[in-house]
Amino acid sequence: MEPEPYDLIITNGVCVTAADVAAFDVAVKDEKIVLLAPSGSLGSAKAKRIIDAEGGYVMPGGIDCHVHLQEPSMFGKGSSADSYESGTRSAIAGGNTTIVAFAPQQKHLDSVLEALETTHQLAKDNCYCDYGFHLLVSNPCAKALSEFKQLALYEGVTSLKIYMTYTALQLRDDEILSVLLTARQNRILTMIHAENGDVLNWLTDQLEAAKLFAPKYHSNSRPPVLESEATNRAIALSSLIANTPILLVHVSDPEAALRIRQAQTAGQPIFAETCPQYLFLTRDDLDKPGFEGAKCVCSPPPRNKDDQLAIWRGLQNGTFTVLSSDHCPFRFDDAETGKKTCITDDHPVGKFRYIPNGLPGIETRLPLALSANKLALTKFVEVTSTNAAKLYGLYPQKGSLIPGISDADLVVFYPEGRLSKTTVTNSMLHHDCDYTPYEGRVVDNWPRYTILRGNVVWDRDGGGIVGSKGYGKFVKRGQSSLAGIWETVEEDGAFDLEAL
Amino acid sequence: MEPEPYDLIITNGVCVTAADVAAFDVAVKDEKIVLLAPSGSLGSAKAKRIIDAEGGYVMPGGIDCHVHLQEPSMFGKGSSADSYESGTRSAIAGGNTTIVAFAPQQKHLDSVLEALETTHQLAKDNCYCDYGFHLLVSNPCAKALSEFKQLALYEGVTSLKIYMTYTALQLRDDEILSVLLTARQNRILTMIHAENGDVLNWLTDQLEAAKLFAPKYHSNSRPPVLESEATNRAIALSSLIANTPILLVHVSDPEAALRIRQAQTAGQPIFAETCPQYLFLTRDDLDKPGFEGAKCVCSPPPRNKDDQLAIWRGLQNGTFTVLSSDHCPFRFDDAETGKKTCITDDHPVGKFRYIPNGLPGIETRLPLALSANKLALTKFVEVTSTNAAKLYGLYPQKGSLIPGISDADLVVFYPEGRLSKTTVTNSMLHHDCDYTPYEGRVVDNWPRYTILRGNVVWDRDGGGIVGSKGYGKFVKRGQSSLAGIWETVEEDGAFDLEAL
Amino acid sequence: MEPEPYDLIITNGVCVTAADVAAFDVAVKDEKIVLLAPSGSLGSAKAKRIIDAEGGYVMPGGIDCHVHLQEPSMFGKGSSADSYESGTRSAIAGGNTTIVAFAPQQKHLDSVLEALETTHQLAKDNCYCDYGFHLLVSNPCAKALSEFKQLALYEGVTSLKIYMTYTALQLRDDEILSVLLTARQNRILTMIHAENGDVLNWLTDQLEAAKLFAPKYHSNSRPPVLESEATNRAIALSSLIANTPILLVHVSDPEAALRIRQAQTAGQPIFAETCPQYLFLTRDDLDKPGFEGAKCVCSPPPRNKDDQLAIWRGLQNGTFTVLSSDHCPFRFDDAETGKKTCITDDHPVGKFRYIPNGLPGIETRLPLALSANKLALTKFVEVTSTNAAKLYGLYPQKGSLIPGISDADLVVFYPEGRLSKTTVTNSMLHHDCDYTPYEGRVVDNWPRYTILRGNVVWDRDGGGIVGSKGYGKFVKRGQSSLAGIWETVEEDGAFDLEAL
Amino acid sequence: MEPEPYDLIITNGVCVTAADVAAFDVAVKDEKIVLLAPSGSLGSAKAKRIIDAEGGYVMPGGIDCHVHLQEPSMFGKGSSADSYESGTRSAIAGGNTTIVAFAPQQKHLDSVLEALETTHQLAKDNCYCDYGFHLLVSNPCAKALSEFKQLALYEGVTSLKIYMTYTALQLRDDEILSVLLTARQNRILTMIHAENGDVLNWLTDQLEAAKLFAPKYHSNSRPPVLESEATNRAIALSSLIANTPILLVHVSDPEAALRIRQAQTAGQPIFAETCPQYLFLTRDDLDKPGFEGAKCVCSPPPRNKDDQLAIWRGLQNGTFTVLSSDHCPFRFDDAETGKKTCITDDHPVGKFRYIPNGLPGIETRLPLALSANKLALTKFVEVTSTNAAKLYGLYPQKGSLIPGISDADLVVFYPEGRLSKTTVTNSMLHHDCDYTPYEGRVVDNWPRYTILRGNVVWDRDGGGIVGSKGYGKFVKRGQSSLAGIWETVEEDGAFDLEAL
Ligand SMILES: [Zn+2]
Ligand SMILES: [Zn+2]
Ligand SMILES: [Zn+2]
Ligand SMILES: [Zn+2]
Ligand SMILES: [Zn+2]
Ligand SMILES: [Zn+2]
Ligand SMILES: [Zn+2]
Ligand SMILES: [Zn+2]
Repeated sequence: MEPEPYDLIITNGVCVTAADVAAFDVAVKDEKIVLLAPSGSLGSAKAKRIIDAEGGYVMPGGIDCHVHLQEPSMFGKGSSADSYESGTRSAIAGGNTTIVAFAPQQKHLDSVLEALETTHQLAKDNCYCDYGFHLLVSNPCAKALSEFKQLALYEGVTSLKIYMTYTALQLRDDEILSVLLTARQNRILTMIHAENGDVLNWLTDQLEAAKLFAPKYHSNSRPPVLESEATNRAIALSSLIANTPILLVHVSDPEAALRIRQAQTAGQPIFAETCPQYLFLTRDDLDKPGFEGAKCVCSPPPRNKDDQLAIWRGLQNGTFTVLSSDHCPFRFDDAETGKKTCITDDHPVGKFRYIPNGLPGIETRLPLALSANKLALTKFVEVTSTNAAKLYGLYPQKGSLIPGISDADLVVFYPEGRLSKTTVTNSMLHHDCDYTPYEGRVVDNWPRYTILRGNVVWDRDGGGIVGSKGYGKFVKRGQSSLAGIWETVEEDGAFDLEAL
Repeated sequence: MEPEPYDLIITNGVCVTAADVAAFDVAVKDEKIVLLAPSGSLGSAKAKRIIDAEGGYVMPGGIDCHVHLQEPSMFGKGSSADSYESGTRSAIAGGNTTIVAFAPQQKHLDSVLEALETTHQLAKDNCYCDYGFHLLVSNPCAKALSEFKQLALYEGVTSLKIYMTYTALQLRDDEILSVLLTARQNRILTMIHAENGDVLNWLTDQLEAAKLFAPKYHSNSRPPVLESEATNRAIALSSLIANTPILLVHVSDPEAALRIRQAQTAGQPIFAETCPQYLFLTRDDLDKPGFEGAKCVCSPPPRNKDDQLAIWRGLQNGTFTVLSSDHCPFRFDDAETGKKTCITDDHPVGKFRYIPNGLPGIETRLPLALSANKLALTKFVEVTSTNAAKLYGLYPQKGSLIPGISDADLVVFYPEGRLSKTTVTNSMLHHDCDYTPYEGRVVDNWPRYTILRGNVVWDRDGGGIVGSKGYGKFVKRGQSSLAGIWETVEEDGAFDLEAL
Repeated sequence: MEPEPYDLIITNGVCVTAADVAAFDVAVKDEKIVLLAPSGSLGSAKAKRIIDAEGGYVMPGGIDCHVHLQEPSMFGKGSSADSYESGTRSAIAGGNTTIVAFAPQQKHLDSVLEALETTHQLAKDNCYCDYGFHLLVSNPCAKALSEFKQLALYEGVTSLKIYMTYTALQLRDDEILSVLLTARQNRILTMIHAENGDVLNWLTDQLEAAKLFAPKYHSNSRPPVLESEATNRAIALSSLIANTPILLVHVSDPEAALRIRQAQTAGQPIFAETCPQYLFLTRDDLDKPGFEGAKCVCSPPPRNKDDQLAIWRGLQNGTFTVLSSDHCPFRFDDAETGKKTCITDDHPVGKFRYIPNGLPGIETRLPLALSANKLALTKFVEVTSTNAAKLYGLYPQKGSLIPGISDADLVVFYPEGRLSKTTVTNSMLHHDCDYTPYEGRVVDNWPRYTILRGNVVWDRDGGGIVGSKGYGKFVKRGQSSLAGIWETVEEDGAFDLEAL
Repeated sequence: MEPEPYDLIITNGVCVTAADVAAFDVAVKDEKIVLLAPSGSLGSAKAKRIIDAEGGYVMPGGIDCHVHLQEPSMFGKGSSADSYESGTRSAIAGGNTTIVAFAPQQKHLDSVLEALETTHQLAKDNCYCDYGFHLLVSNPCAKALSEFKQLALYEGVTSLKIYMTYTALQLRDDEILSVLLTARQNRILTMIHAENGDVLNWLTDQLEAAKLFAPKYHSNSRPPVLESEATNRAIALSSLIANTPILLVHVSDPEAALRIRQAQTAGQPIFAETCPQYLFLTRDDLDKPGFEGAKCVCSPPPRNKDDQLAIWRGLQNGTFTVLSSDHCPFRFDDAETGKKTCITDDHPVGKFRYIPNGLPGIETRLPLALSANKLALTKFVEVTSTNAAKLYGLYPQKGSLIPGISDADLVVFYPEGRLSKTTVTNSMLHHDCDYTPYEGRVVDNWPRYTILRGNVVWDRDGGGIVGSKGYGKFVKRGQSSLAGIWETVEEDGAFDLEAL
């Protein structure tokens, strides 16, 4: 092999993949990883740039597969605090190199391709990191279903999300079956937001009738049984359609996690996601003086301390395939588009029902989870990057360090102990939201460099955001390649009415 | 104690209650049981009538708490084959002394009291056995809910039934919660028909689209997961309202039974019923040449042999509180009101979707279940009479043999071996239906006498039906007294929004 | 029926059986129940004695099927505080009419019939209540096994107990199988003390090595997993021998109870007993100053508050067939035969290993459990009397109120509210033990009369113990008739080596 | 980076690791992997040898961590068919580069270090592949336990195996606890053979008493409940010692697997192994004419078809950490040392009790499992190599492809479709056993090259065994690094008697 000038060398790092933790060097050329070599051996190779990781972790760049950006107001007055520009800017500062956001079909529209096109327009030329889209299907009419084939085959959209709650989005069980069946036929992965919408509407009415409006009652309107019930139902629907793969998003309730685990034990293709809010926040965070609790209003709501431990356990034992942010930011101190749109003269702390649901988290996901020190490093990479890539058809281009194949998407952390304990404040973040729910938390590491296709886009000590808007590209995704995901589809064959 | 002339003596019987099997004599006066005495000791007592049971079983009369009679057509063209007259006539010939039938509120009506009144008119002066009503609530509007108090306190109606399926009846989860909450406040027991209606509608559409119309596809439209999912959901809703007691009717699926058992193990007040069709019929009975299978179309559909065993196991281990008939007869060879209403020129074997759902069984329940010889005798009495009385607030007036307290409602069987093996045929039954799904089954015992409030109303060898129409009386029922049923209601206290 | 002079009438009582709670009168003649009649109707009948129950509960006399009396010292220096005389005296004062005690085979002896004979000598002419024996088998040699047939057929001993712990008694799993197989062939019920002896010996050694000798470490030497493990093993062994019925004695651990429940759900013939010490004592009772905790040293040890709730739940939901006392008294302040035999100069608070295991409870079982008000009255009678009679082959002679059949064994309680709150003290009890672990507990009722075969033997307000020593008779027991107990034996047929 | 002459290049392969499947090239120097580069890019690099994988899979060499070689006769007359020489020769021909065999302590010896030394003598200079030892502890006396520290710290032996069965080896539960406690303190992993020895001895006696001696009765003597019971007990013992990590070896029973899965779900450090005999053989293989069935006699015995599916499921869902061979060969047609030692004139088909337990499988493990096509390739590598390395402290030296760190231990398969369907025959294998239980099975791939520390030792088309005896080296193993294995040890802290 001839010596060749590399574009980038990362030397002296401790590389972490889903399988290995070991010191070795990485060389990059033409946006790809091209060489893995003994630690230090490339320190003096010819390269346009050499980064000495100084013993810090070098990992595949974070892939955040649950991000809401610039979605139309579907639940009321609030609208997303982040555009594709600000959202992806925040993403790279948090060590992410790829996100998958939602292309929402509104209930009154019959086409999903149009929804996709609309979303493309928002993202195009605006992103700091690579990106893809999940279709968010709220009207699974015949036309929409007929377009699934094109989504998967030509548009590079191989996943979609549906809701069992939210009046504007909720699908009935028969509609869910239609989606699952068409998704199965086109090898599309269906993500499900599993909360029982009818029950939560009823509870909300009851709470309001009792004049309980404060933000903390958001929790009371969504007790855990809402989630475990809907989770059980989603799994039942999947099993009915000859075991169609589904992913339960943002699981917060240990009972729901246990139900998922049972299905996995039995070999059903049930996958699950959890999010930092279920690891780092609790229900008490909603119960703060005045309107403050609204900052932590998201759905499902944060649960209790014990539940956090159970969710960590679910990450450790493999119940959860991915750890995503569910970044869904609304400005707090904003009565036009943010949390405070629900405040009226009559209700100075608002009505919890109208608080826009969601919180920002794209930038804090990796540093918080790494600093918690609860996951083996390989597991950390698996749930924050590799599995996301495999699950959503980005692999092996994304999520790994395969020479000649993987994009040179990397996040480099500080050597252990190098960064003094760092307190998270909103001022250090790069989103357009005016708060972070993790204000004041202390972390002990942070992405030092984020490298996207061989280019440093985030250099914490050398300019911060150094990538440029528009460098991020849309990634056409292939079929999910997560181990075993289509296995039962093969085994059980087509959905067969005679076999019911 | 002065000697006194009894109205009736039953001597030489082997009396069976929910606790005991033992030979003793029973004396009756003024419609009540008044004396239990050593076997044979009353053989020469003064009495208007003495029945020598000759060693046959003497049990509290059967109580059938799931009977449909003269209900309006709510699902299509079919209407019930049995009136209150013919239905209760069949009941006493099958050893029953009390039934609880349904007073159906139609979806477009806002009052349940009116539905009750309408049903009273149908039953009044027409019944051969005592009777009560469950309200069937299909429109739980504010007015209907506000009437629950009167139902329980003044009308003697302390139970109601709701449906999670059937377009004409199906309640959404929020409506179910409203019913449960109001029922809880009035100590009313809620019976739930747990099948997922949206799913079965979808499956029916799929089957029809595939041109699968034959009766047997009724089974395919209602796979077991429909039932276990809805059962899980019903239990979740009960738990949400601070553990409100519910009874799952006509459980056919072992997975559903297991879910119920788990809830019972955890101390939740979840009760369950099963029916002879899940013990004696299978799915194969729907798959007969031509339209014949329609005779066994009921919901849930009969399952498989293994499932039958599991359902028997559930009766043995206490999962099931009661064994009822779900008597819901439609004439077979009748294109005006019966099963054949679904037959058209285009569809000579009909469309399963339009086959009236239900089958007759009030008269065969006791002899079939006794002859199966799978239940301890005490358990047999418990699930066919005593528990029904306790569960539905008829106890101790009904369902037991308490001197001075219990109505003299008895069924006397033949001594073992006395009756030669008897083949069930429709011609020997007393309903107005033109078939029995158990045609040709062989049983080894049958009610010899049925005694209602001290009067023989069925004397198989002495005239058959000897009771008279109108002798049956409406029974105002009290609060359910089944052990433990309200215990969690006490413990958990009122439904508390703050505690969610 | 001619008027006849009864020996005894109980009028105005609220009679409770395993199925019913209702006011009716009871007449007794020639030691048997002979008439049940409307409440108050027998108040003026001719009878040698009339008891006006004044609305108090009248129940079948308590049957305590787990009682240790005058057993040889098998574990060390302690010996039972109670003889058959004092033990049965205490029994009747606590509302019991029958006990089943143990006839212990010592390890070095090869005959069980001799053990039985020896025990007969101790009990004969000494008992205040009726009694039977369980064989306690510690050496299941060929000779002992060959004697099982005679035990069951001629000696009226249809149950035996074995131990998975205690060096002097512990059987290895192969020995247990031999016992189970022979028991199965002779329709004998096997009771199993399920704690893992090897593990507890090891833990005891570890504790002693760490110089942890105080009474409270008795708990540490027997953590719950010891019990749930052994319970699981016992169930596995039963299942291996084609589902042989077993009863797990004195279950204290909720995990063990859950394992038992699972087996019951699956239809295995697994039965279980719990005791007042697991409902009313906790581990804290062992952790008292000085040697005081030794009073509550028994095996398994009392657990925690939460565990108590779970054990109550197990009584409510049917996991436990019987509630027995496990009366096994050792005097506290007695260095010759009692708890203090373990105290030496070196160890002023003794060594927990040598504390005689057991506590008195035969007299307090009924009043404590009734006052707790956690069980439906029918359930209370079921677990303290009727099921014990059925399980151990005493039924229908004992445990029920069947005219002409049941012995007139009754306990009559005070009318509700009649007895002011009563504080339990050892001075009011009738055993020969110098303490009760329930000293100071407050109860709100107590047996007012105990009636054995028609004779009042305990009259709390009229002389206390009014029965006489020797009136109690040995009862030959038949085969267990508990519903379903032999069902799987029938179904599964003989133990078949080819079928393994 | 300077060009450098590599020792070996593997180009054009599809490399598979526990995380990735992707085409890239691998360069080797000085026994280590030194470079991973784009596929084809090293085809013309300077190297002593270049292997063109032609698209075939290139994987980390197989690690077989359950191998019995030259063990003393501990169960009777049989002795191992394979020496370290022949066993490791067979290993490399089957794609393995490292094995871990057993160093057996005999029951009458008090030292484990001596056992280790004895085994070293057998292996030294005789092996074709690298090797390590598990201590097999049969006498955990104080001296043996005191030597554990040296084993782990100085001898590179960080795992040991114990038995719950076999008279010569069986430890009682107290002895197991002593082993677990000392192992925990020294971070040694304990492997447990979980079958209930007492029960199987009893069953064997029963079978013999019934004159059932044929090989097939080996199955009857070890029904699945033996294994699930012992598995449950082992898990209980682990939990008692503050959650000490254990590995259940050769799991065959789905119930046992489910119990393991439950423990894993709860976060307990329970690991498990299964073996090809539970994936490819069934109980029917023992039921062949004459003595033929003896070939498949191993413990636990092969189960049924359905059980095979469940065991595959357990590999897929992660219940099983490793898939090992349990290579334990005995010659079949050999009355001196092999299976036929149990044959006597009286018993021409032998007595199953005396059939040496075990079968050969070291060479067929990889080709059989790969050809079955049931596991994702990454999972295949994980359970056959990477996890074995991590679990047993060989990682990252073994089990991965880390440049500069991992030994160049590789197995190269044929390109898909290159090898025609190949029928397994014993004549093609390299062990010293005279049969393979897989005779006649068809596989579709086979190791083409096995490379140990950069040297080709097996070249199927170029000489077969080309490595040399003695090239294999003893590997000192470190502490297990499997993700999470010591986590609970950290969390729960030391075994604390006060906390029990
Ligand atoms: Zn969502
Ligand atoms: Zn979201
Ligand atoms: Zn219904
Ligand atoms: Zn019905
Ligand atoms: Zn005991
Ligand atoms: Zn005892
Ligand atoms: Zn083994
Ligand atoms: Zn082995």
